[in-house]
Formats: sequence, structure tokens, C-alpha cells
Amino acid sequence: MADLSLAVAGEARIDWADAQMPVLAQVRARFARERPLEGLRVAACLHVTAETGNLVRTLRAGGAAIWLCAANPLSTQDEVAAALVVADGIAVHARRRVDRATYTAHQATVAAAGGAGPHLTMDDGGDLLALLHQPQGGAPVDGDGDGPDPGARPPRAPELIGGTEETSAGALRLRAMAARGELTVPVLAVHEADTHRVVENRHGTGQSALDGILRATNVLLAGRRLVVIGYGSCGRGVAARARGMGAAVIVCEVDPIKALEAKLEGFEVAPALEAAERGDVFVTVTGNRDVLTREHFERMRDGAILANAGHFDVEISLGDLAAAAEGPAVEVRPLVERYVVGGNRLHLLAGGRVVNLAAAEGYPASVMDLSFTNQALAVEALVREPGRFAPGVHRVPHEMDAEMARLKLASLGIGIDRLSDAQAAYGRAWA
Amino acid sequence: MADLSLAVAGEARIDWADAQMPVLAQVRARFARERPLEGLRVAACLHVTAETGNLVRTLRAGGAAIWLCAANPLSTQDEVAAALVVADGIAVHARRRVDRATYTAHQATVAAAGGAGPHLTMDDGGDLLALLHQPQGGAPVDGDGDGPDPGARPPRAPELIGGTEETSAGALRLRAMAARGELTVPVLAVHEADTHRVVENRHGTGQSALDGILRATNVLLAGRRLVVIGYGSCGRGVAARARGMGAAVIVCEVDPIKALEAKLEGFEVAPALEAAERGDVFVTVTGNRDVLTREHFERMRDGAILANAGHFDVEISLGDLAAAAEGPAVEVRPLVERYVVGGNRLHLLAGGRVVNLAAAEGYPASVMDLSFTNQALAVEALVREPGRFAPGVHRVPHEMDAEMARLKLASLGIGIDRLSDAQAAYGRAWA
Amino acid sequence: MADLSLAVAGEARIDWADAQMPVLAQVRARFARERPLEGLRVAACLHVTAETGNLVRTLRAGGAAIWLCAANPLSTQDEVAAALVVADGIAVHARRRVDRATYTAHQATVAAAGGAGPHLTMDDGGDLLALLHQPQGGAPVDGDGDGPDPGARPPRAPELIGGTEETSAGALRLRAMAARGELTVPVLAVHEADTHRVVENRHGTGQSALDGILRATNVLLAGRRLVVIGYGSCGRGVAARARGMGAAVIVCEVDPIKALEAKLEGFEVAPALEAAERGDVFVTVTGNRDVLTREHFERMRDGAILANAGHFDVEISLGDLAAAAEGPAVEVRPLVERYVVGGNRLHLLAGGRVVNLAAAEGYPASVMDLSFTNQALAVEALVREPGRFAPGVHRVPHEMDAEMARLKLASLGIGIDRLSDAQAAYGRAWA
Amino acid sequence: MADLSLAVAGEARIDWADAQMPVLAQVRARFARERPLEGLRVAACLHVTAETGNLVRTLRAGGAAIWLCAANPLSTQDEVAAALVVADGIAVHARRRVDRATYTAHQATVAAAGGAGPHLTMDDGGDLLALLHQPQGGAPVDGDGDGPDPGARPPRAPELIGGTEETSAGALRLRAMAARGELTVPVLAVHEADTHRVVENRHGTGQSALDGILRATNVLLAGRRLVVIGYGSCGRGVAARARGMGAAVIVCEVDPIKALEAKLEGFEVAPALEAAERGDVFVTVTGNRDVLTREHFERMRDGAILANAGHFDVEISLGDLAAAAEGPAVEVRPLVERYVVGGNRLHLLAGGRVVNLAAAEGYPASVMDLSFTNQALAVEALVREPGRFAPGVHRVPHEMDAEMARLKLASLGIGIDRLSDAQAAYGRAWA
Repeated sequence: MADLSLAVAGEARIDWADAQMPVLAQVRARFARERPLEGLRVAACLHVTAETGNLVRTLRAGGAAIWLCAANPLSTQDEVAAALVVADGIAVHARRRVDRATYTAHQATVAAAGGAGPHLTMDDGGDLLALLHQPQGGAPVDGDGDGPDPGARPPRAPELIGGTEETSAGALRLRAMAARGELTVPVLAVHEADTHRVVENRHGTGQSALDGILRATNVLLAGRRLVVIGYGSCGRGVAARARGMGAAVIVCEVDPIKALEAKLEGFEVAPALEAAERGDVFVTVTGNRDVLTREHFERMRDGAILANAGHFDVEISLGDLAAAAEGPAVEVRPLVERYVVGGNRLHLLAGGRVVNLAAAEGYPASVMDLSFTNQALAVEALVREPGRFAPGVHRVPHEMDAEMARLKLASLGIGIDRLSDAQAAYGRAWA
Repeated sequence: MADLSLAVAGEARIDWADAQMPVLAQVRARFARERPLEGLRVAACLHVTAETGNLVRTLRAGGAAIWLCAANPLSTQDEVAAALVVADGIAVHARRRVDRATYTAHQATVAAAGGAGPHLTMDDGGDLLALLHQPQGGAPVDGDGDGPDPGARPPRAPELIGGTEETSAGALRLRAMAARGELTVPVLAVHEADTHRVVENRHGTGQSALDGILRATNVLLAGRRLVVIGYGSCGRGVAARARGMGAAVIVCEVDPIKALEAKLEGFEVAPALEAAERGDVFVTVTGNRDVLTREHFERMRDGAILANAGHFDVEISLGDLAAAAEGPAVEVRPLVERYVVGGNRLHLLAGGRVVNLAAAEGYPASVMDLSFTNQALAVEALVREPGRFAPGVHRVPHEMDAEMARLKLASLGIGIDRLSDAQAAYGRAWA
Repeated sequence: MADLSLAVAGEARIDWADAQMPVLAQVRARFARERPLEGLRVAACLHVTAETGNLVRTLRAGGAAIWLCAANPLSTQDEVAAALVVADGIAVHARRRVDRATYTAHQATVAAAGGAGPHLTMDDGGDLLALLHQPQGGAPVDGDGDGPDPGARPPRAPELIGGTEETSAGALRLRAMAARGELTVPVLAVHEADTHRVVENRHGTGQSALDGILRATNVLLAGRRLVVIGYGSCGRGVAARARGMGAAVIVCEVDPIKALEAKLEGFEVAPALEAAERGDVFVTVTGNRDVLTREHFERMRDGAILANAGHFDVEISLGDLAAAAEGPAVEVRPLVERYVVGGNRLHLLAGGRVVNLAAAEGYPASVMDLSFTNQALAVEALVREPGRFAPGVHRVPHEMDAEMARLKLASLGIGIDRLSDAQAAYGRAWA
Repeated sequence: MADLSLAVAGEARIDWADAQMPVLAQVRARFARERPLEGLRVAACLHVTAETGNLVRTLRAGGAAIWLCAANPLSTQDEVAAALVVADGIAVHARRRVDRATYTAHQATVAAAGGAGPHLTMDDGGDLLALLHQPQGGAPVDGDGDGPDPGARPPRAPELIGGTEETSAGALRLRAMAARGELTVPVLAVHEADTHRVVENRHGTGQSALDGILRATNVLLAGRRLVVIGYGSCGRGVAARARGMGAAVIVCEVDPIKALEAKLEGFEVAPALEAAERGDVFVTVTGNRDVLTREHFERMRDGAILANAGHFDVEISLGDLAAAAEGPAVEVRPLVERYVVGGNRLHLLAGGRVVNLAAAEGYPASVMDLSFTNQALAVEALVREPGRFAPGVHRVPHEMDAEMARLKLASLGIGIDRLSDAQAAYGRAWA
């Protein structure tokens, strides 16, 4: 485990994050009063950061006993781990940059939750649930081959109630397990909440993508042509902010309805090959692959900057870029590599990896505030309404989503109106 | 019918609208080549305006014979009616401000379509289809009481293929007919297209609501507090533009997720009673009733302006306003009435009727361009794919919606990219 | 004079304007307490509108006797004139659409101010001061040919203290008089105040120019390319609002520093000939002539709309337009004329006259609020500080300008900070 | 001097900056053709960065011999210094973090310019000119005590033609020298150009202040209340961008006209004490002192963030903050210190130093592009027009300013119109 002398520094970081996470703080206060998780064991495999520290403290305030390991060996903040051990007595099994074997051992320890197995899991990639559902000895979960028996529990966690999942990739993996009849408990996919889409994609990604570009390059956006490729909710966030910073924005989009929306919001809309000839800064945010390829690079102007804000590093074709370039790439600033294509200098940021994370810090704590409140409320819902969710992966229920938006507004000091009965009836008549 | 000497003036107006309706013009050119409506009779009950003139000419280019009457006795532009008669030989049965009997007679004439009944109808409120489905003599449409027989046709239009409907209210009426088993043909509800929502609500309503307010009052928006009540697609259009004109915008909304969206887009969010104390201009656009009532009026400041941009005049409670006011309302400018409440002057615009239409001109021609292209494409789809749509009211199919967005972009000189096969496959894997 | 039965309607209009003019209302309240104009005769030649009605009432509250005539025979609101006569006993010599002789006679009557001549004049074009300085009989103003004698007064107004002037054109005329040694009194040019530039040009013109375009055409701005020619304070107001309405804006400007400002604020910048090929709506606001000429018209696209927001109708070359067009212009809507140039339809608004006034209503009352407060404070300054201003035309003093901004903020419920003594000293050290 | 093995890395950084500095590149190309500085010695005391590297190369292309030292011992980029020595043979006397004695010795060496003294100086704080004007031995510059003799030259630089100055502080110091009759040559103050104000203050400071805040905190701006104190050109840049990022902006300003401008542009305006109660993020940018003091801190809410974007660290009163706080400050993130005032956590960024530089990288290279082009053109003007500028500190002439804007536009591929002779004459008639 981490060096416990770091606990003071960790406490300061957790406190800073707490100041940005007022929604979770409201839930924590209620949990402390109501103790909905009293006596339950929670196994959590998450990024061990200051924000997660506040989530873990919320669950603990609700009465849970917690085992925590890392969802990625690089993201652990050792001082936060130390603070959670020292101040909260939480079993944190994580240390930055541990080797693969140690990392795996940490997951196994946390999955065991002290031996009896967890009542609840929290995943960021599906690792814990996958581990718990692995066959143990000769006892298959599915006794008759036609899917999990009603009431079956994974052998390693006989009291398991359910779990939460933070990522798209994890949800995809768990849905595949469910399709194969292997998932025995309900899982709430918190990233599929509407509030998540609104807050995280549009605002979290929108801001942090530009932040990453500025940190990597320090270019002035005012007066530049910034090309946003992909006008989904992330792309809209990037485009609106780039305009707000003084850039002239060109949107590229394959869906004609989204393209029309962009046009009517005042953006220029063009095919990517045409935009390639005119842009100064390019941001891919499509969720697809090979969005910028050799034919684009060959049309770009001297000085062009290429950034990817999509999840995977496949949007800018790195193979094409290397093939089109004269000579090897040269690092001209940290995270900025220059490729010369047809005599023009093209500058690739962060090796084409997601620029929000690779060149900035990813989502702000106030964005994580909603995601982690979602986690806490999801865990509570699984416990309070045991029969409500069947085994499988579920979206967060709408009323939980609405409640979270309400809590977020309350944290900003904002109340809103409610429909009167007469208005509700009128609305239904016209729905 | 109209005074035919007005035809020259009508031609000029139609031409002006045509210059704003390039999407429909593209369809008209194609229809002239392909003649998809050759030999078909179309009965249309629409607002007889310059924009409708261009729609009617498009159908005629496609080979249809057309009978046209008015959806409202007040909206008819007599010079347009004259031009359609003179230049196109279309049977226009409409004149501005005709009495009720004449208006009804016009509808009956058009519904007859020369005696044989129409192949297709175009409605703006459902009048023609309702008329055609009325029992005629002893022959009920529904022979066995369990809904329309397969292949049944309304007695007054034995060759009827289907129809289109332009409004929400019409679609509601036709769905009620369908629920009672009375509707024998498919109807495409063109206002339910995504392009419609994007273009008409957000941009059409957004602009014309502010336009109506400015025409009625000539107030400077810069530096004013404008309160938008309702943050649906119409409200977003109003709020974004008001900000763009320099107003400080307060959004009131009952849905917490929409309220949070407004807040994250930088708007102030408040309950309506609180906004009542601080606003200078109020715009209701909720689609609900009694949105502003006595308790709001009593909190408002001297000089406040009240406008409704929702469809019906029930959003601002006129009864409450009259009851709260000292003395009768006084017209201080055309379409502006002053009520004095608690010593403060409140100014009601257009009697609380939808300010876009009552004080301005409603949707711009370029908005109607999409609606009417939708009409033309819907009629074509009904004809080209006879078995595709069952009796009942249908949304416009997505591919027609996308095609329309594509045509609109093309009219703006904009092409967009298409996914490669590899990209489409990649997208499906992650969907 | 006007029909006095209109007084009730006039009272309503004045009251409406009063609700938009809170700054002037503050001054009126103070004038009523302090009576700074007690016993003085004021001759005013202004547009006789509801806003002017509130100005006149302010002067009267300050103790002045007022004679009022019209600065233009077309702008008089007869109901306002009636109300001022009936309610205030003011000598109003104005009626809408009077003939030239009557109009001139009205001015002469007002200039006489009951026979003794005015103490103060208020001009909107310099007419009254010009009239009062005309030689009368054999008594020249300038006794020795080297400019007005100290203490000289124009023969027709022997007690004249000074005047105010509302327009650029009037100030130019009066400065020419001063240069010829003919002006015997100080004149404060109220339109040269900083608050005037900020409020009237940027916001007053900015909003009303777009308002005029929308009233004349009802075009949807979202998604259109709007070309603003001239990026002075008026042009900035137009450009910012057009963007706020969803238009893509192209700025044309001859001053490279202003052009660079536009570019860095995210606008596209291009020469007018290039913009001519791409624009949908053109707005000239340069203050210069022949801004759009034949070579521009010949490059424009079908459907283009041409509006002028500059003071004079010389910015769009009407001669070139007529010469380039095939056939005569056709009115396709009120205030919209179609010219066909090279097969493309170009639409000229309001005959190229200033679109704010010709198609909308010019400045909002809240803009006139500042101009007219300026008038009232200027008159007061002339009276309270008799020796302060020498004969000639003067800008409004800065402290009056600042006071007006402060009053305007106060009317909006806004107080601001003041520098502490230490801060003021620090600021001076660095100035 | 620097470690020459760093030259390759320095070359890469200079090349990266060059890609952002197209205006200077145009001047460099012209200088290479025209050689306006042939045979002249230039002594430059500037921040030794990649941008300065491109300036120095421009002067060298013009024919100058250059001696370069650092304006600050901390800002030197050693790899850039190495590249300038290796590739250009420039005499660079600078190394990062040298001690005071070495730093001073470097300045003396550069001021000597090889022994004969420079023809031209370039200063960033006035050090070189101050050094050169120090009396040397018994020979005063001012022979007769009434100011510099015509044609006098400082004893240490007998051939000195003039100099340039980059900063306000330097210009103030040199003007004080001039007022004491000690400055013998003309100095062009390049930061006083209009282009500088537009580009550097509004856009350079506007962007980099927010960039600094985001790097220090990673807070989400959307939905936050950001308070901008000071609405000069820097404050406008901050306010516009914060709004563009989704923040609700409150402006505090002591000048009522600027406050009114802010209000009419849609910002909320409030006194600082009132804003203190409501803000989430505070940015001071007044150029004054004690802008935020104890009474403000005591009203702030939990979680508030305090940043200064003004030049000096006196805007946020650090003494008051320490005095008001319970216990010592705690660093909760790098550059973020938490003070607890009345139970609320306030977070001070970068110790109250200018956040653009302390937490981000200061002006983008494209901003320095204009400043340094100004430097190059100013040096050229001093040489080409020897008698034009008298001894003393001068603003950059307007035509140079305009030329720079024109070059900047050209670098963006933008040409603009010029007035015709007739238009110029018309404009003069109305000026």
C-alpha cells in the first residue's frame, strides 16, 4: 500500500475536490443520517483519485465497509490512498505504477471483500464483476445451461446484490456477459444517465478538450479556424466553446440533420477534405476511426494542429501520418510532434490520444460530482429496492436522473417550479 | 373566388417566396422530370399564402391536378389565389374574410375534387380527411364494427391513397379518429419530422417570437432581463437569440434536467415567482396553461412586458390579469395594452395570443420551405410505396427526414461526408 | 395645430414611452424639486413623438416655458402634440404632413418664443439657431467683421444663453456657422457624448437595423450569410446581433485595425467584392458612398437582400443598380423591390434609405432616454454655469457623460464601486 | 553561456514558434531582400525565448549584428540560446537562473556591443538605455544643464540612433529619464500601438488568464459565476471568453460608462461587495491595488477561487487574506492555496501573482508575433528616417500600426478594401 506519510497531502486534495462536489456532499449528509448501506460490503475498482475519495467517504457515511483497488495502475494518487487508509480506515489496495501481478492481486483481494465476498460492486471497466463470475472449482453458475437460475449468485460472492459500471466499454463487456447468460445480478450503467450526457459530454469534454489543446500548444484561438469533426454532444461542447474563445469554427458531420443543426446555429459546415485545406486546428470527436487520413494531411496548411478528443487513438490515422511525412516526427514542445507533409508542418498533439486526458486532466471534479452521485444513488437503489432490477445491464431510471439534476441545481442555490395538478393534466391531454 | 386582376401582384409575392424556398425548388425540378403524381387528384386545405403557392406549383409540376381551399378565412392572400388561378389554372376556392358558410362550401367543393374525390389530401387541421370520412347515406366505412376493413376507402373518396397533416392539433384529431376506427388511410404528420423540430421550433419560433415582441414594442433588448418560461426547443431558440441581442436571460423550467442544461449553458435559472420580481420582458413558451398568474403579476415591476409564444392564448392567465388590474386595460400602442397592477404598469402584447403570428408574420418562408418540402415528399412516398404505411397517423420516416436535411444543405451549397464501409462497421460495433 | 380630441390616445403613448425612459424620469423628479429653468423660455425644434413629449415635460417640470415645432413634417405624432397642448398647455406648432409653408411658419413662431425670443434652443438639424442668427433689418451680429462680439446676442433672441443640437448634420452646419464667425452662443452637441456612441450607435442602430430587415422581409437569419460593410460602432452592433441570431457574418472594412479586430472576434473578414459572391443579406453601415456598386451587384447570388443602415441613401448605388438590372424594379412585398441582375433576383429594401427608420421605428425609447436626458442636462449646464462654454459647438463634458451613465445604471437598479483615495492615487501614478 | 548541445532542441522550439509567427516571417523575408540594418549593431535585452529567437533572426536577416542578454534571469530558454549561438552565431549572453552578478555582467557586455556601443537598443524594462546613459567618467551627457544637447549621444554609445521599449514599466522609467533631461535618443514604445492593445490585451490576456485558471484548478466554468473586476480591454477579453465557456459573468467596474457598456452587452454588473457574496471564481484585472480586501473575503462563499490577471500582485490584498484566515494557508494543489475565512474555503491561485504567467505560459506566440513585428518595424523606422523622432519616448506611428494590421491580415490570407478617391473625399467632408 501507499506511504502513509502522504496522508496530510492527500487530505488537502480530497478537501479541494470536496469543495467542487457539493452534490455528493448533500448525499453524504443524508447517508450519514439514514445509513442505507449499514452492514454491507462494497468492493470498488475505480481510479483512486481525490474525487473517488469523496465517493468512498459517502458510501462509508452510509454504513458500508469498503475495499478499494485501482481501475488503472497509472491513475492512482498515492496521497489520496494514504488519506483514505489513515483517516477512514478503508482497505485501499492501490499504488501508482505497480507491476501487473501486484495490480491483479489487488483486484483479487478487493473482490474477496474480506473473504465473504461483496454485497455490491462498483466497476470502471467491468473487472470486478467479471472476476466474481469466473467459475470457481466445479460449480457453474448456470445449473441447466439456459441462463442464470433465478436467485443464483456468483460463487465468489454468494450475497451479491448488484453493481454499478462507470464506462461504455465496461457496459459493453457486461452486456456481452449477460447475452451469454453469465451475469447473475443487475448492473446500473451510470454513464447512460441523461445528466451524464448533458454534463459530461457537452461540458466536461467540451471544456477539457480545449484545455488540453491550450496546455499542449498555447496557441491563440481568436481568429483561428478550428475544425470540429463530429457534431454529437461532445462536438457541440467543443464547437460552442471554441466560438466563445474567438475562433471561426467549421463543423464536419456525416449525419445531415446534425449538420443542418450546426449550420443553423451559425457554424460553417463543410466536408472534411475541404475543411482540411482551410483549418488551423483540427479536433476529431466522432467515436469512429480513420477520420483524418493521408488525403486530409496532404491538403493541410503549414502550421496545422491535430488533436483527438474521441475515446480511442484511432480517429487520426497515425499510420497514414507517418507514411505521408518526410522524415521522422520531431517533438517541438512536450506533447507536440511536428510532421512535415508536402513541405508543410503539421503538429500532432499527445500522439493522437484523447487530448483531454493526455494533455489536460480529464473531467473537472464538478463533472465527476454528478457521475459519483449517480454511483452512490445507484448503489442505494439496488439495496432499497431489491427486486426492482432483473439481472442484466440497466440504464439509470429517469426519476433518479431527475433527482440528481435537482440536487445539482440545489447545490447551485437554484430551486425550480413544479407543475400544478391542473397543468400536469393539461400536459397529458396534449402529449 | 379572388379578383383576378391581383394576379400580377400575386406573382411577385410567389416569386419572392420562391427565392427563399430553394429546397422545394429542387424537388419541383425533379418532379417536373419524373412526374410522380401524373394523373392524380390532390385536395389541399392550407393557408393560401405565397409559400403555399410554391408548394402547389411543385405538386402540379409532378403531374397532379389540384383543388385548393383555405385552412383559415383570415390568412388567405387574395393576390396569391389570383395568380394560381391565372398562371396555373388551379382551382382555388378561397377569399380573404369570407363568411362561415362560404368557407365551408369551399372546403366541400375542394373535398369533392371535381366529383370523383381526391387521391391525396393535404390538411392543416384535419378538415378534409374528417369531411371525407363522414358517413354518406347508408354506407358505413366500417362494415363489421371492428375498425376499417382492409382496403376500405371513405365513401366520398373511393380512390383515396392517403394524406398529409401539417399541425399538432390536426394530428391529435386524426389519431382520435384512428383510435375510434374511423380513419381508413395512412396520414403522414409532417410536423413530427426531426428537421421540423430543429428548424421550425428552435429557429422559426425563436426568431419570430422576438420579432413579434420588437414589432409590437420597439424595446431595446440590450441590458434588459428577459424571462423565458419553458426551455423546450422553442424556448431554447428564444433564449439563445435574446442573449445574442444583449439581453440577460432568466430561464424558468419545471423539468430539472432541462433546467440544468440551461444553467450549464450560462443562463440564470429561477422559479417563475422569483423571476417575476426581476424581469423586464416575459415570454411564455411552455405549451401549458396558467403559466403566469395573479401571484406573478403582483410581483412584477413597473414597465414589464408580457408576451406569449406558445400555441394557445392560455399561458398568460388573462382572467387573472384583468382581475388584478386597477381599471380597464388601455391600448398604448397597437397590440400593446397597459394594465396597472399594484401601481405598476404591465404591458400585455397581442392580447396574450401567440406573438409570432399576432404581432409578426409567423415562420419565415425558408422555414416553410422545409415543411412544404416535407409535404411534397410525403405525398410522393404515399404514391410510390402504396402498401408501406398502414391506415393511421405516422411520423415522417427517418430517411425522408435525412434526405430533406441533405437537400437543405445542398441548397446552401454544402455537401457533407459519408461514412466509409469500414467506418459504418466500426460504428455498429460500438452502438 | 393638432386635433385635440386625440389627447387621450397621446397620453397613453407618452405614458408607454415614459415606462421606457426611467433616466429622464429621474431628472424630471429632480427638476421638479430644484426648478433650474424657472422663468426661462425654451424653443425646441424636434421630432414631435412620445419620447419628445417626456423631454418637454421634464423641461416644464424644471420651470421652463416651452414652444415646440417639428424637425420633420412627417414624423409628428398628432396625438402626442394634442396631449402636450391639453395636459401641459405647451405651445405645440406641429401637425403631421403639413405643407412646406406651414412647416416654416411653425418654425418662425417657435423661434420667436412669444415675441421676446428664447433663452435656450433645442435643435435637431440646427434650424432654430440658423433662423435666430439670420440678420434682421440692419443690425448685424458681428459689429466689426472679426467674429461675434463678446456678449453679442442674435438680434431675434437678445437673451439667448445657448442651445443644444441632436444630430451630426446639425453640428456640422453649426460648426460652419461658427467658423464664419456667425454663431454667438455656445451649443452642446449631445450626440457626441460617449454614452451616445455606446448606447445609440452600437445598440440602438445594431438592433433597429436588423429589426428593419426582419420587418421588411421576414427572412430567417439562422444559417444565412450576412455581410456587414463597415465595422465602426454601428457595424459592430449589427454584426454581434446577427451572429446572436444564428447568421454567419462576413465583415468588410477599409481600416486594417478594425478589420483585424473583427477577425479576432471570430468574424470572417473579406473584401466586398468577394463577400458579394457569398452573401445572402448585405448591410451597409459605413457613412460613406458607393459602397455597393455595379461590380458588386453583378457578382451577387439569386435571392440576395440589400439593406442600408447608414444615415444617407448613398451607400448602395441606386443608379448602378437600376443600370445593371434587366427591366424595371418590381415591388414583391411592401418595402422590398426586386431587381434582376444577370438572371439573379436582388431585393432592395426601403429604396436604399436607412432601414432602421424606413422599415422599422428607429431608436427604441430607452435609447432616446439617454439622448434626451443628455438634452435636459445640457440645457441645465448652460443655465447653471453661464460663462463656462464659449460661443461655438462643444462636446458634452465628460462628467456629464459619466453622470448620465450613472443615472442609467441606477434606473436599472445597479450601483457601482468608487475608487478609494489610495486607489485613485495609485492609478494616477501609473497613468 | 548555455550548453550548446541543446541547440537541436532549441531549433525545434524556434521552428514551432515560427509556425505561429507568420507576420514576422513576412518582415524577415523583406529584410533579407532589402537589408535595412546592414552594418548596424543592435543590443537587445529581452526574454530569451523561442519567439525572441525569431525576432533576432529577423534583425539578422536585415543585416544587423546582434548582442542579446536576458530581461529576467528566470525566463531564459537555454536551448533557444544555444540554437541562436550555433545556427546564427549570435552573441547570446544569457543562462537560466544565473546569479545576480552574472546577470548584470551579461547586460554590461551586451550594452557594450563589442566595444563600440550599439546603434540601436531593444529593451524590456529600459535596462540597456539606462545603462548606456549612466555618466561615464567625468563627461555628462547634458553639457549645459538644460537637457540633452541636440545631437548628443550617450558616452557609452556614441553612434546610438535610438531604441525600442516593450513594456509599460520601461516606458514609464524612460519617460522619467526624458523628463529629467537625461534621454538623448528617441525611443519607440511598441506596447502603445493600437494593434498591441487589441491583440495583446483583449485576446492575449483574455485567453491566457482563463488558461491559467484552468491549469491551476481544472474547474468547470459552465454554470459557474465568474466575477471579472475591471472592464478595460483585458477585462473584456476575460469576460467574453468566460461567457463563451458557459459561465455567468458579473462585471465590477468603477467607470460608469464602461459599466454601462458591460450591462448593455448582457453582463450582470454589480459592486464588488455584492459580487463577493455570489461569485464562484474571481478575476481581478484593474491595474490598481487592494481590489479584493478583507470585507470581500468575509462575504465569499465556500469554495471560492481567487485569481489575479493584473500585472502586479497587489490587486488581491494578501495581507488581508492572511489576517482574515483561520490558520495558515494549505496548498491543496500546485499553485492553489486554501485559506479558511469564516468557515469557508477560499482558494488563492499562484499566490496572487499574474495568473497568465504564473499558472500558464503568458501570451501565445501569435500575440508575440505582432509585438515583435512592431519591434522590427520600429527599429527599421528609426534607421530609415533618422530625423523623424526627437529624443524622448514615442508611440508607434499610426501608419506603422495600420501596416502591421495589414500584414497580420495578409498572414491569415485576408485582403481588405481601400477607399476610392471619391470615398476618401466624401469621408473628409463629414469628418
